[in-house]
Amino acid sequence: VIVLLTDFGSSEYVGVMKGVILTISPEARIVDLTHSISPQSVREAAWVLSKSYRYFPKHSVFACVVDPGVGTERQAVIVETPEYVFVGPDNGLLYPTLSEASSYDVYSLEPAPTASHTFHGRDVFAVAAARHHSGIAASNLGTPQPDLTVPLNFYLQNRTGEVVRVDHFGNIVTNLPPLKKKHLRIIAGSFRDEIDLCVTYTEGPNVGIFAIVGSGGTIELSAKNQRAIDYVSVKIGDHLTLE
Amino acid sequence: VIVLLTDFGSSEYVGVMKGVILTISPEARIVDLTHSISPQSVREAAWVLSKSYRYFPKHSVFACVVDPGVGTERQAVIVETPEYVFVGPDNGLLYPTLSEASSYDVYSLEPAPTASHTFHGRDVFAVAAARHHSGIAASNLGTPQPDLTVPLNFYLQNRTGEVVRVDHFGNIVTNLPPLKKKHLRIIAGSFRDEIDLCVTYTEGPNVGIFAIVGSGGTIELSAKNQRAIDYVSVKIGDHLTLE
Amino acid sequence: VIVLLTDFGSSEYVGVMKGVILTISPEARIVDLTHSISPQSVREAAWVLSKSYRYFPKHSVFACVVDPGVGTERQAVIVETPEYVFVGPDNGLLYPTLSEASSYDVYSLEPAPTASHTFHGRDVFAVAAARHHSGIAASNLGTPQPDLTVPLNFYLQNRTGEVVRVDHFGNIVTNLPPLKKKHLRIIAGSFRDEIDLCVTYTEGPNVGIFAIVGSGGTIELSAKNQRAIDYVSVKIGDHLTLE
Repeated sequence: VIVLLTDFGSSEYVGVMKGVILTISPEARIVDLTHSISPQSVREAAWVLSKSYRYFPKHSVFACVVDPGVGTERQAVIVETPEYVFVGPDNGLLYPTLSEASSYDVYSLEPAPTASHTFHGRDVFAVAAARHHSGIAASNLGTPQPDLTVPLNFYLQNRTGEVVRVDHFGNIVTNLPPLKKKHLRIIAGSFRDEIDLCVTYTEGPNVGIFAIVGSGGTIELSAKNQRAIDYVSVKIGDHLTLE
Repeated sequence: VIVLLTDFGSSEYVGVMKGVILTISPEARIVDLTHSISPQSVREAAWVLSKSYRYFPKHSVFACVVDPGVGTERQAVIVETPEYVFVGPDNGLLYPTLSEASSYDVYSLEPAPTASHTFHGRDVFAVAAARHHSGIAASNLGTPQPDLTVPLNFYLQNRTGEVVRVDHFGNIVTNLPPLKKKHLRIIAGSFRDEIDLCVTYTEGPNVGIFAIVGSGGTIELSAKNQRAIDYVSVKIGDHLTLE
Repeated sequence: VIVLLTDFGSSEYVGVMKGVILTISPEARIVDLTHSISPQSVREAAWVLSKSYRYFPKHSVFACVVDPGVGTERQAVIVETPEYVFVGPDNGLLYPTLSEASSYDVYSLEPAPTASHTFHGRDVFAVAAARHHSGIAASNLGTPQPDLTVPLNFYLQNRTGEVVRVDHFGNIVTNLPPLKKKHLRIIAGSFRDEIDLCVTYTEGPNVGIFAIVGSGGTIELSAKNQRAIDYVSVKIGDHLTLE
């Protein structure tokens, strides 16, 4: 399985990547993880990948393209772990996921001379993912590299964490672990409130926001039949305290 | 074929469901019916499913997740008809579709103790659909139940019906059957107008709305090169008279 | 491979087309090129197809449905080239792509008497694509026709071209070929500015728009961490000079 994760939205860039993959590896099964990462938000993509990859079959190849530095000297890489393969820019996107691997090997990918300066998703990452899927080892696709060079850590200090994702329902996903309280105090910039920590959406109040343990095992802010993000004006990477 | 119908939009929740399915049933073909159901609109999902399922190959398994009551006591079910299999919450979503089946058997699904309280799409419905697809009978996945417990009927009384879907083009889809007239009077809340019933979009007036028999065989309101929903302010479930 | 290109967005119309295809040709692999063509913009679809088709495996069948004239006398066609097959309305959509083919044969498709007047994507184009994929020659699906009847040419006169696509990132794609300058003057309606022509997005200024050679090999207008379309108010087909 080749899994795609990008910030391309519903554009044809995704379809073109699939065409390239199927031209090289006609039997590949291609699955979209999501293409709705906020444009150029490496941080949000890193979170989504780290919370999702384990639900895919072993040996899946992930082609991850959130790549504001495309065409510059930022390195393209293919990384093998004992369980999965990841292809993408070395800009932090893969870092949290690989931090969880028992071991991994990094190889840098050289764009072909004909590669576009603006679309390595098509000309570098789709090609490498498809070639690997068709049986070419990572060591034959790139040059060994000691490690990833750009770290990305999500901020977590006591009960202060960060906003890591705003989802389709307007839920604000944080990296804060659950806690055994029924009431929480939230501080997010100038926004302060006391809110309930509920077990199900149905338990939540009819007006205003509440906290809930989301599907990734961390605390999310939600609003019943409304969008939490319309109540609390935060963006990816903003710090937030829940105590 | 496993067919997915949700209100998850373009989020990663869809991709994660596919990962779960392919881990359990690696050869499954997965097709997205749509994920653009209005958030938590069981009614709209029920309409879309009832108008779409018959276009899929026999024995397709539909995993339907529009589930505002996730994590509460609302029952998760798998339902077999002679032609198709449906997995989803027993909240009305499956009701109109199953009303058309010659017969059906309902089995309730018990979430695993480790299931999230917020994402049964991943932890219950994708799992059941994939297991069924891999050859496990519904009777081995759940407990027989006499019937669905939550009915859902679309309102239809003479020439008054309801809004069942607002599509991507802003067309307002109703459940009203066609009639042999060229001119109609429309009453939708405080909106009243006289409009034409056209055979093709091209026939429609250049300004304002018109009626047309849509692809589901019911009357839709449309506007040429514009969005009918910008003319008539209605939402899913609102009553509407066309005479 | 059957490739879908429509203006259906995230609606169920795409899913229903896939159901029809898999009912007729159960082994077909279906790939979405994109469904985010601006509603009814034959011009934008024609550009996207012409820039994308060559990335798909040889003998792919493209089902293209941007079809404002559905149900009228505009002809539905299936067209074979030595390398690909195209199905769609004869409204210009296929014209630029077929202009690049060494040769092609056009066959007109007759809608079945039961076909909807509003959804030939389901009742004509998906059916023809799937039947061809399942082994039925185009000459057995339609009636030979001398040529396409509706031409579509993108305007290009010296350094004046047109806007052919506005992508997911708000980039404004033109049909203007690259040129070896570092500074350009742009005239788009009443908008006039002097802008840089950059090699990578990173090179671009932090505020305001710049030009870049996009992945299709033509000049695009872009804005760093912003949307160029918010600076320059143009729409598909508008003329634009870059010199």
